Amino acid sequence: MINVTVWNEYRHEIEDQEVREMYPEGIHNVVASFIKENGSEVRTATLDEENHGLTDEVLQNTDVLVWWGHKAHDEVNDEIVDKVHERVLDGMGLIVLHSAHFSKIFKKLMGTTCDLKWREADEKERMWVVNPAHPITEGIGEYIELEREEMYGEHFDIPAPDELIFTSWFEGGEVFRSGCTFYRGNGKIFYFRPGHETYPTYYNKEVQRVIQNGVKWAAPANRPRPIYGNASPLEQISND
Amino acid sequence: MINVTVWNEYRHEIEDQEVREMYPEGIHNVVASFIKENGSEVRTATLDEENHGLTDEVLQNTDVLVWWGHKAHDEVNDEIVDKVHERVLDGMGLIVLHSAHFSKIFKKLMGTTCDLKWREADEKERMWVVNPAHPITEGIGEYIELEREEMYGEHFDIPAPDELIFTSWFEGGEVFRSGCTFYRGNGKIFYFRPGHETYPTYYNKEVQRVIQNGVKWAAPANRPRPIYGNASPLEQISND
Amino acid sequence: MINVTVWNEYRHEIEDQEVREMYPEGIHNVVASFIKENGSEVRTATLDEENHGLTDEVLQNTDVLVWWGHKAHDEVNDEIVDKVHERVLDGMGLIVLHSAHFSKIFKKLMGTTCDLKWREADEKERMWVVNPAHPITEGIGEYIELEREEMYGEHFDIPAPDELIFTSWFEGGEVFRSGCTFYRGNGKIFYFRPGHETYPTYYNKEVQRVIQNGVKWAAPANRPRPIYGNASPLEQISND
Amino acid sequence: MINVTVWNEYRHEIEDQEVREMYPEGIHNVVASFIKENGSEVRTATLDEENHGLTDEVLQNTDVLVWWGHKAHDEVNDEIVDKVHERVLDGMGLIVLHSAHFSKIFKKLMGTTCDLKWREADEKERMWVVNPAHPITEGIGEYIELEREEMYGEHFDIPAPDELIFTSWFEGGEVFRSGCTFYRGNGKIFYFRPGHETYPTYYNKEVQRVIQNGVKWAAPANRPRPIYGNASPLEQISND
Repeated sequence: MINVTVWNEYRHEIEDQEVREMYPEGIHNVVASFIKENGSEVRTATLDEENHGLTDEVLQNTDVLVWWGHKAHDEVNDEIVDKVHERVLDGMGLIVLHSAHFSKIFKKLMGTTCDLKWREADEKERMWVVNPAHPITEGIGEYIELEREEMYGEHFDIPAPDELIFTSWFEGGEVFRSGCTFYRGNGKIFYFRPGHETYPTYYNKEVQRVIQNGVKWAAPANRPRPIYGNASPLEQISND
Repeated sequence: MINVTVWNEYRHEIEDQEVREMYPEGIHNVVASFIKENGSEVRTATLDEENHGLTDEVLQNTDVLVWWGHKAHDEVNDEIVDKVHERVLDGMGLIVLHSAHFSKIFKKLMGTTCDLKWREADEKERMWVVNPAHPITEGIGEYIELEREEMYGEHFDIPAPDELIFTSWFEGGEVFRSGCTFYRGNGKIFYFRPGHETYPTYYNKEVQRVIQNGVKWAAPANRPRPIYGNASPLEQISND
Repeated sequence: MINVTVWNEYRHEIEDQEVREMYPEGIHNVVASFIKENGSEVRTATLDEENHGLTDEVLQNTDVLVWWGHKAHDEVNDEIVDKVHERVLDGMGLIVLHSAHFSKIFKKLMGTTCDLKWREADEKERMWVVNPAHPITEGIGEYIELEREEMYGEHFDIPAPDELIFTSWFEGGEVFRSGCTFYRGNGKIFYFRPGHETYPTYYNKEVQRVIQNGVKWAAPANRPRPIYGNASPLEQISND
Repeated sequence: MINVTVWNEYRHEIEDQEVREMYPEGIHNVVASFIKENGSEVRTATLDEENHGLTDEVLQNTDVLVWWGHKAHDEVNDEIVDKVHERVLDGMGLIVLHSAHFSKIFKKLMGTTCDLKWREADEKERMWVVNPAHPITEGIGEYIELEREEMYGEHFDIPAPDELIFTSWFEGGEVFRSGCTFYRGNGKIFYFRPGHETYPTYYNKEVQRVIQNGVKWAAPANRPRPIYGNASPLEQISND
């Protein structure tokens, strides 16, 4: 069983009537609810809880952390970002959703600006599968179509993903690497593009399936961190 | 449950006393036996069976095919190689062991010579984990040490693997990319180096664990092949 | 100085009035002409010449081979394909243009079907740069726009490219990995999508620039093939 | 012509008699001198100069920055690290040598700990070429042998390199990914392992050749940064 923590900034839903109507209990509770269907144990955490809900104990007991944030990335405490970073390198999976491309934790892990083009214009999006062998695409057709979404366009300033899984087409003329995996230390990271707060994206069954698959894929392998530092003295090499 | 077919050339064990003592029932039966422990359904097939034991029915009902061959690659029928190739692109996993680097199926999938350096000199080998996040390394320490093995050395003439998982050190001064994964079409391929027929390599518990992990990793995602060819007429793009 | 051979099937231009008007001297002569501007030494070769114009001597003296083919892939002699394959692994660069995704040489090098979706519907194409650090993008803006082209869509059944450089957007709703590099043996391969025979694509200055850059990138490094096979006996390891 | 700045911590050479005898003018001057042979314009900069010798003007006029540091990584000013980081994403090449794997700039670009195993035991090292098509290997044989070097061993906690070029074998039983390239933003990064301060490594002609090749490879493509942020309003799509 996989222990999942879904983290949400949870500000739009409180401050903005339109978003509240879309996600009355917050994006985190919708995401948590369909991940549970997968048989995972799921808790949630939000920015305005103490320690953003991410105590050492919570982090230690999280196999996969899902992250949604947008307008308050700067309010996330640097110390907690460092702890999440360490946990990822230690093996904890990380699912980075939509505008969390600009979260401190994703930028720190990528080492680049993670910048991109964007436009809010109710555009149609098609996320095409470009790696049909990957477990994250299980049960998904050739593409996922979203009638209206925020556009994200290239250049997306990330390292080339270890595995490119989805590439989006947008009505207005842009493309975007929408499903990207990264191995870092003992940890696995999955960036998944869709999920602007004013659209019903997280109610889409295929989007849900991809995130469920992502959680399974990102769950840690059972192994300790490698040993670093000064290695034991030169060992004798013998054939006996 | 994963349906596995373990294919073996099964000539050394018959013709060579030393190998027969090492693997009295053939390498395939040893490999099949530890894969079964994983809860998989396992059958075997060998070169000298009719159709090399790889009828259309067997191939259709195989989720993951394990391949060991060495001295009789040329005797494998091209038509059967083509069928295996098609099945891999269709989603069947393929585990390529040791000297099967020179099998027709691996060369056809790689598009390169798959050549390498080799030396039989009872050398110590250490396979170091270079991607500790990968599920194929689950339960494995920092390296697997084999007291004596055949040396395989770089340059290994393959495409850069999609994921490099193990790199071997050999006593005599060579290194080798020993654990390599490749996505091809809907299929996943895992090349794993060790297993010369005169050594007890496939009785090694860590080697067994890696192959068990490889089978799980290579099992097909449940999805049809993408549709290729002439696409439907230009669709209307609308915002409604 | 780079010695380039531009190979063209050269059938459409002879048999089809519309294509002849677009490329009266054949696609190869247009491509050869702008590669020459780069300071390269350029010759051409076509399907209906003896040995398809690809004698051993020509191949030995070619640093980079550019390949355009479409309707007569099957007429290319297998022996010559094998020789080109060997030369690529030996270091010769290969630029694969448009419908040559289905050429025997590209399929042999990739090990997959190289299949894709296509549609002839005069669609607008935008090729977005996704790796702005790559030398093949030198002098190119954020994207190259082609007013009308044949659509090629995902899934493109190739191995994940070693470097993904361009991704195309098409008016009708598809995306495509349009600029892809592959290292194989000592050789470098660049697949570049655009160039349907009924469009003036190869007169486009940016398309020309990309191909010029590709030739420079694909030119061989000055080094022999690695040595393969039985390695010298175990060398003594000493610290003196 | 490529403008190169060679940066050195320049402390060992001043404080330690053994190192001073090896590199009397400092490692930077030896490295600068063989890069000049390449036809590049080379300046040097060191930690104890004002702004570590890396003023805005110097950085703006540097095409490729070479970095050697070891015992004083922490003394490098964070603001200057941020400026170098920005310049790399802007297109400046970066060559990271040996113990600079732990430099602030490399860790910031990688997003991981960049930790590794090490041992000072006068071990023989062999750096094997694993990508013989790459321009960084031009003029280099199958491997570079160094009679004595510091050992660096896996696991090396970096993202999987975009291109793996060298893998080292060490006498004591370890392997290491010794030549690694990374694309980040508009910039290219080359990590190259050898060069412990007590060994004559930078006088080795093959090591010199690799660094010369690396400088050529890392030189920026002539193109502006992509445009990020709010994209122009949805453009009309038309076929006319």
